[in-house]
Amino acid sequence: MQKIVDEIASQMASKTDKGIVASYIPQLACVDPKQFAISVALPDGSVYSAGCASTLFSIQSISKVFTLTLALGKLGERVWNRVGREPSGDPFNSIVQLEHEHGKPRNPFVNAGAIAIADAIIQGHQPKEILAEILQFVRYLADDESIAIDEKVARSEELTGDRNASLAHFMASFGLFQNPVDAVLGTYFHHCSIAMNTIQLATAGLFLANNGHNPITGYRVVSSDRAKRINSLMLMCGHYDGSGEFAFRVGLPGKSGVGGGILAIAPGKASIAVWSPGLDTIGNSKLGTQALELLTQKTGWSVFGQ
Amino acid sequence: MQKIVDEIASQMASKTDKGIVASYIPQLACVDPKQFAISVALPDGSVYSAGCASTLFSIQSISKVFTLTLALGKLGERVWNRVGREPSGDPFNSIVQLEHEHGKPRNPFVNAGAIAIADAIIQGHQPKEILAEILQFVRYLADDESIAIDEKVARSEELTGDRNASLAHFMASFGLFQNPVDAVLGTYFHHCSIAMNTIQLATAGLFLANNGHNPITGYRVVSSDRAKRINSLMLMCGHYDGSGEFAFRVGLPGKSGVGGGILAIAPGKASIAVWSPGLDTIGNSKLGTQALELLTQKTGWSVFGQ
Amino acid sequence: MQKIVDEIASQMASKTDKGIVASYIPQLACVDPKQFAISVALPDGSVYSAGCASTLFSIQSISKVFTLTLALGKLGERVWNRVGREPSGDPFNSIVQLEHEHGKPRNPFVNAGAIAIADAIIQGHQPKEILAEILQFVRYLADDESIAIDEKVARSEELTGDRNASLAHFMASFGLFQNPVDAVLGTYFHHCSIAMNTIQLATAGLFLANNGHNPITGYRVVSSDRAKRINSLMLMCGHYDGSGEFAFRVGLPGKSGVGGGILAIAPGKASIAVWSPGLDTIGNSKLGTQALELLTQKTGWSVFGQ
Amino acid sequence: MQKIVDEIASQMASKTDKGIVASYIPQLACVDPKQFAISVALPDGSVYSAGCASTLFSIQSISKVFTLTLALGKLGERVWNRVGREPSGDPFNSIVQLEHEHGKPRNPFVNAGAIAIADAIIQGHQPKEILAEILQFVRYLADDESIAIDEKVARSEELTGDRNASLAHFMASFGLFQNPVDAVLGTYFHHCSIAMNTIQLATAGLFLANNGHNPITGYRVVSSDRAKRINSLMLMCGHYDGSGEFAFRVGLPGKSGVGGGILAIAPGKASIAVWSPGLDTIGNSKLGTQALELLTQKTGWSVFGQ
Repeated sequence: MQKIVDEIASQMASKTDKGIVASYIPQLACVDPKQFAISVALPDGSVYSAGCASTLFSIQSISKVFTLTLALGKLGERVWNRVGREPSGDPFNSIVQLEHEHGKPRNPFVNAGAIAIADAIIQGHQPKEILAEILQFVRYLADDESIAIDEKVARSEELTGDRNASLAHFMASFGLFQNPVDAVLGTYFHHCSIAMNTIQLATAGLFLANNGHNPITGYRVVSSDRAKRINSLMLMCGHYDGSGEFAFRVGLPGKSGVGGGILAIAPGKASIAVWSPGLDTIGNSKLGTQALELLTQKTGWSVFGQ
Repeated sequence: MQKIVDEIASQMASKTDKGIVASYIPQLACVDPKQFAISVALPDGSVYSAGCASTLFSIQSISKVFTLTLALGKLGERVWNRVGREPSGDPFNSIVQLEHEHGKPRNPFVNAGAIAIADAIIQGHQPKEILAEILQFVRYLADDESIAIDEKVARSEELTGDRNASLAHFMASFGLFQNPVDAVLGTYFHHCSIAMNTIQLATAGLFLANNGHNPITGYRVVSSDRAKRINSLMLMCGHYDGSGEFAFRVGLPGKSGVGGGILAIAPGKASIAVWSPGLDTIGNSKLGTQALELLTQKTGWSVFGQ
Repeated sequence: MQKIVDEIASQMASKTDKGIVASYIPQLACVDPKQFAISVALPDGSVYSAGCASTLFSIQSISKVFTLTLALGKLGERVWNRVGREPSGDPFNSIVQLEHEHGKPRNPFVNAGAIAIADAIIQGHQPKEILAEILQFVRYLADDESIAIDEKVARSEELTGDRNASLAHFMASFGLFQNPVDAVLGTYFHHCSIAMNTIQLATAGLFLANNGHNPITGYRVVSSDRAKRINSLMLMCGHYDGSGEFAFRVGLPGKSGVGGGILAIAPGKASIAVWSPGLDTIGNSKLGTQALELLTQKTGWSVFGQ
Repeated sequence: MQKIVDEIASQMASKTDKGIVASYIPQLACVDPKQFAISVALPDGSVYSAGCASTLFSIQSISKVFTLTLALGKLGERVWNRVGREPSGDPFNSIVQLEHEHGKPRNPFVNAGAIAIADAIIQGHQPKEILAEILQFVRYLADDESIAIDEKVARSEELTGDRNASLAHFMASFGLFQNPVDAVLGTYFHHCSIAMNTIQLATAGLFLANNGHNPITGYRVVSSDRAKRINSLMLMCGHYDGSGEFAFRVGLPGKSGVGGGILAIAPGKASIAVWSPGLDTIGNSKLGTQALELLTQKTGWSVFGQ
């Protein structure tokens, strides 16, 4: 496995077109696009890495996997009253579907859906409290108490978050929110600003590759049934209107973030985190996707056959 | 395995809500909704069945898996100039996406996409010739020369096919068609009217569960890589705007037809055909979906974990 | 008035950007774009013209005014069961609105609406009979028995009419059509292919400027109330998604055709026909619109004030 | 004229279905739906009224006519960089069109358009200053210094203004706003909360009926050309997706507000204000529309003919 990740890192280093770093959040725009990291965590608890695997990056939308898991724990199946579980066929920040479907987002991984999930888990708590809980949950999953929110990124998001504010107010206008829009947006912007490295991220996703059970910490995070369902949502909706392409090329459940990270799950086999900040036109990490494609070719881990 | 399929058939027989038989094609509307069949074909060539597994039914949109496979063989990657590979988020017969995206269907499994595939494979041949080729291909996959087109269903579809005619003329208006609209629609209506039973259908899908190789006939139908990609498209788009729900509940690549059949693939493990003519509101077999959900619970075959 | 139309024709002759002749109907594409004609018919029956006012051109969508008038005569208010009376905000050939509103076109002047009107007036007659009736009605309005259908244009439209065929089949798929789609389309393509000159067209529109009464023939065509309503529809919807712009600049009810003609009505004052085959990007006559803008500036005929 | 307005008020008093008072702004919901008022201002400066013509009501969206007029005075034709001038075919608060057209509203009378106009006229001033200027402009038009903003309504709007906040943030996300979203919304909510009676409103609209000149105060408010254009926008877009219906039935440029008021302009003849708080399903005053329909029948004032 170490040989495989080394080969992948080496091939990625030689690529000349590394995509474009996200510019709409100023704090993200200053990241060096040449960086690449990959970590593969196996069910036996071992983690194999290559590239700058200890460099922290903004996990952004990958955090939606963790808040969905938390929301399922708190609300159970009532989560599906707030968001659907179908791909939207639209970009991550589209509002058209919301108008046609009375403010209910198609799935928990488009921005509107994750904002609705943020509202659902606040449950009358203060944003600070719920953020502490989200952060504690991610630390627990990654077995690493050092994980923190990058406040500079969070503030940068708030200053440039008009599109997300529009989505939130739109849903609120249907009477669907239980908390003030500002509290919900604050929670959302902050959990998107959690900084992790690929080792931490691959470890945090291991419960999804291992039937809900984290072999490193020994904790049962969710039931095996729930792990399957989260994986299915990641495959169907984890890359917005590029989800079909990711399934076609990589063949694994995955969730991308505009910070350039991707968490991918090979059920029963591995949890994989890749990071490279250059994005393709849809907003997914360019080298990250290529690295995962290479990985499934080398390992035969695609869920669709060897 | 025989015990599992018997149990499933028995449980399905006891269900009282069996869905509604498709009414928009008159010839389909006269089918008895109480029928149920399941066949599971394994890579060793054995087939386990329960229910009325030798009763013929109209495979309808399941035929799109076979025409896509044929098109990939004839045109290779040029197929993707004609159709995309993303879920549409829209019903099977929606035209909105076509207008927004200049006549190119989102994927080969929505009606517009399958009609575009029909145009692509005609390649200047007569509709009769191409239909003979499609039928021969299905017989070859199922290893059964008796498979035929139900001409009554085909005529019934033609008489009530205004929505499909609208989709076809719409695409043709962008100059995207190489053949006359009538020839394309005739081909499409006829391949949707192929009649099969679940034994034949499960056998015909076996190459997708077995890395492109049919263990019964010994033929390599497609490369293992292509088999994976067809499976990924089935998972993402095989149940229209119910694809996410099917992935969430069943967790297998699958393709449904309004005749009540579903072909599902457990890569490396099995090709499964179910049939029950009652449909849910989205147009997928109600008991068929429940039977597959039960099957993956009993077998742990979900691609998303045990 | 003669001086005014002469001045306008002279100014139009000096314009260098005369727009682009419609190319999607081959037979229309061969028209010389430099031509311009204007005719102003007054309630006293006098007609003032300049330019090539006796040259025949294809009236295309202007015919929709005449078929709507005929449909109102035959069906009365039941016409509004078939089409709405709101601007669509969409291009002339859009199908998106039809899907969102279950096959009912927004108004009688978008293509789908006019096709629905064609279906409504056939009422079980043969297309030939109804075409003869439409033609007879236009001759009666224009007081000119020489007016005829240009069969070459009609055939050219039929050969390139996929978009209109798509609209028609789409509506038919909702069970909204009383006649075969081919008969309806044949009727539609032929009434769009009526050839007239600006003198004939201005005369034919005079009843709308004169409270429903044609002062030349002495016939009462429609009630004054109905004339008002037809005028309101022309203002709101007569130029597709350029209707607001036409109201803003010209300020008169008007109906354009892709042949380059426009019929405009100054209620109580005049019926005006202009023709110049070069179109703007929305599909309305470029010089024709400019000529009408100039005319309302010179005459103070805008319905919105002097 | 007094006889006509008395007859209309009397007929309206006898109507049993008076529509439903707007409920989404709580402060508007407590208004008594049985009230009706009409005032007709003539170019000679005389005003004829019936009903409770001195009762103040919230003018709501009618204020958009005044802010557009102000914006045209401040920015001239540059206003059209911010908003289009086509009917949208969508409800007043739709966001779909904004996503399809990159944040530029179709016209200045849908909510998004009026919010964009509010941003355009602030021009770096404090919201308080610009509100004072808007209020001063309305007083100047109505020749009545007593006109004021109803602060209770303004606060009520702010508390329930999520949909408008969504529209504003959406446009801001395209970088189209020059001022903070909160300042723009505050301005918008307050100018919508101006309270007027029908006498004041009819007087304030008189410049539009009189080629830009207010005969009572002697002021030239706008050029005759600009008055025409504002009238054309009112006709095309003044009643949202009910504009076609209003043109069809009433035949006058008009602008409605959810407070139940309508300002209608008969160019060259009269400025008319009606008020009755019960609304139809589209959000326009039910009795107000019927009263105007009756008025144009009795007077022959429709711009589309007598």
